[in-house]
Amino acid sequence: MSNSRYRDAGVNIDEQDKAISAIKKLAASTFTLNVITGLGSFGAMYQLPAGYKNPILVSSSDGVGTKLKVAFMTGIHDTVGQCLVNHCVNDILVQGARPLYFLDYIGTGKLAAGTVEAVVSGLAKGCRENGFSLIGGEMAEMPGFYAEGEYDIAGFITGIVDKSRLLTGKDIVPGDEVWGFVSSGLHTNGYSLARKIVFDEMKLTVESYVDVLGCTVGEEFLKIHRSYRPILLPVLEKNIVKGLAHITGGGFLDNIPRILPDAVSVEIQMKNVPVLPVFDFLVKGGKIETEEAYRVFNMGMGMIAIVSPKNRDAFLGAVAERPVLLGQVVPGDGTVRLL
Amino acid sequence: MSNSRYRDAGVNIDEQDKAISAIKKLAASTFTLNVITGLGSFGAMYQLPAGYKNPILVSSSDGVGTKLKVAFMTGIHDTVGQCLVNHCVNDILVQGARPLYFLDYIGTGKLAAGTVEAVVSGLAKGCRENGFSLIGGEMAEMPGFYAEGEYDIAGFITGIVDKSRLLTGKDIVPGDEVWGFVSSGLHTNGYSLARKIVFDEMKLTVESYVDVLGCTVGEEFLKIHRSYRPILLPVLEKNIVKGLAHITGGGFLDNIPRILPDAVSVEIQMKNVPVLPVFDFLVKGGKIETEEAYRVFNMGMGMIAIVSPKNRDAFLGAVAERPVLLGQVVPGDGTVRLL
Repeated sequence: MSNSRYRDAGVNIDEQDKAISAIKKLAASTFTLNVITGLGSFGAMYQLPAGYKNPILVSSSDGVGTKLKVAFMTGIHDTVGQCLVNHCVNDILVQGARPLYFLDYIGTGKLAAGTVEAVVSGLAKGCRENGFSLIGGEMAEMPGFYAEGEYDIAGFITGIVDKSRLLTGKDIVPGDEVWGFVSSGLHTNGYSLARKIVFDEMKLTVESYVDVLGCTVGEEFLKIHRSYRPILLPVLEKNIVKGLAHITGGGFLDNIPRILPDAVSVEIQMKNVPVLPVFDFLVKGGKIETEEAYRVFNMGMGMIAIVSPKNRDAFLGAVAERPVLLGQVVPGDGTVRLL
Repeated sequence: MSNSRYRDAGVNIDEQDKAISAIKKLAASTFTLNVITGLGSFGAMYQLPAGYKNPILVSSSDGVGTKLKVAFMTGIHDTVGQCLVNHCVNDILVQGARPLYFLDYIGTGKLAAGTVEAVVSGLAKGCRENGFSLIGGEMAEMPGFYAEGEYDIAGFITGIVDKSRLLTGKDIVPGDEVWGFVSSGLHTNGYSLARKIVFDEMKLTVESYVDVLGCTVGEEFLKIHRSYRPILLPVLEKNIVKGLAHITGGGFLDNIPRILPDAVSVEIQMKNVPVLPVFDFLVKGGKIETEEAYRVFNMGMGMIAIVSPKNRDAFLGAVAERPVLLGQVVPGDGTVRLL
């Protein structure tokens, strides 16, 4: 079997075989008993867990955007996978769902098995840390599509929640409190603007050490998107939050409204927001207007919880990390106001 | 709200809004009653259908490879989405699963709302034709990632099957018959080699009319990857096939073994394969060795069914299209031999 012509066309069978072998091992490290078959079968099979009265599947697909460019610039490929998994976990966590399994897509121009293995090791680590399984994926070698050494990744998560435990935000009323949990940095949003400011305008490199950050630009920009599942799990089990919003692209202004009923708004006291140094650095460096900064970046708060004042003590007693009181719910029109 | 800086960084908010609005309408056209919320919420919610005793979820992720280059060359973007959906449907159909919902990922350098709308219209059409729902997706604008006018797409499918109806191939024994269903052309595999032969070596363009194909190169190369669900649904309901293999990248040689028990092999009579003109054209034009051709291309058979001789009449009576008898199962080692 030569596959000579196929290799001529830019498709590298040996590297593919090497990558597949590494991926299989990494994926297997994430398997729970519900995984019936993993990689290799046409579709990956997962036995639905028992005990759900009216099971709702909650799914989301996502990428990590141009954070990947920082991976390319630093040659560090084993953390973006965790960012992708945690992003997806948070996106279904806010609806009360428990993650069941994950599938990935990796598109690349010329496949380098070592890079793919590093990426998948991050995906597998993210899955293990959140207690669920990487059961399948597609690795596409597409000559002429991506620049040398570059790739794109997408992730797909499936989770489950009983209909009675779905978090939708529908019971949010004026007087409810708005709490925020700290982010680890940019997470996976705003990188096109951040890279433009830092690399194009400030002429820094990933190796540049920045005093106010206490680390290099590369280290700051690769900080792993946090999973809020370990922090919020006890709260979800006790049913004491009315709504959760994952602060991704669009910041407070676009993400909090996704869970607000039409007749209420949220007021955020900007003085209460513990803005992370990286956002001060970007806002000053790029002369970004405040409102735009709050639409592009998370500014230091990656997850918002809306809680009735009567549940405040139970909420603060249950969460595994102290949140910040950012503001409150008021009569309104489903929007967010920065005060 | 200016978003001036974000736009400076190459992210185009207006085009994004236009695309999102179009996508919402297209996705809504696919919703079944099980879709609880679609695009807009953090995760997309889907109510698990009732009536499954021991439900197994079957999922797969895929892309369409460098078939996309043909979409770029022709400017026709509304069919690759159908290819992607049908590819995914076939990948879970072979395990007996019924598709429930689909999510997509579209990565692009500079977002053009019209192109994204065309791509998603193909996804939505594919979902409608297979009776399931496009419930979510991610559209990532990544300046500097993709060439002008180019993009990559990935799809994620979730299906369901009762454990007792899972198709695994485990009961395949020597003497079983191997039947093939015709493909519509390249489907979504072998495009890197096919493009190299036709565009680089034969110096044809997508507009070139080729007599033996009866159409232009562009028309041939964009033919839609078939869904075999309408053809095979009656067979699955009657439980009269032992195994199904979707012939994708790797052809007969890599895909049929995925369902074979260790102690059997499959013998394919090449004289029985109704090789489509496009494959003769590529094999001759590219001087491809036979065995390599059968590993890269589907050669005219996109779906293989393995059936006990005692079920032959029931099988032929139930399928909605006449298949071709390609060969048989023999004692062996889990491989495919071309005779």
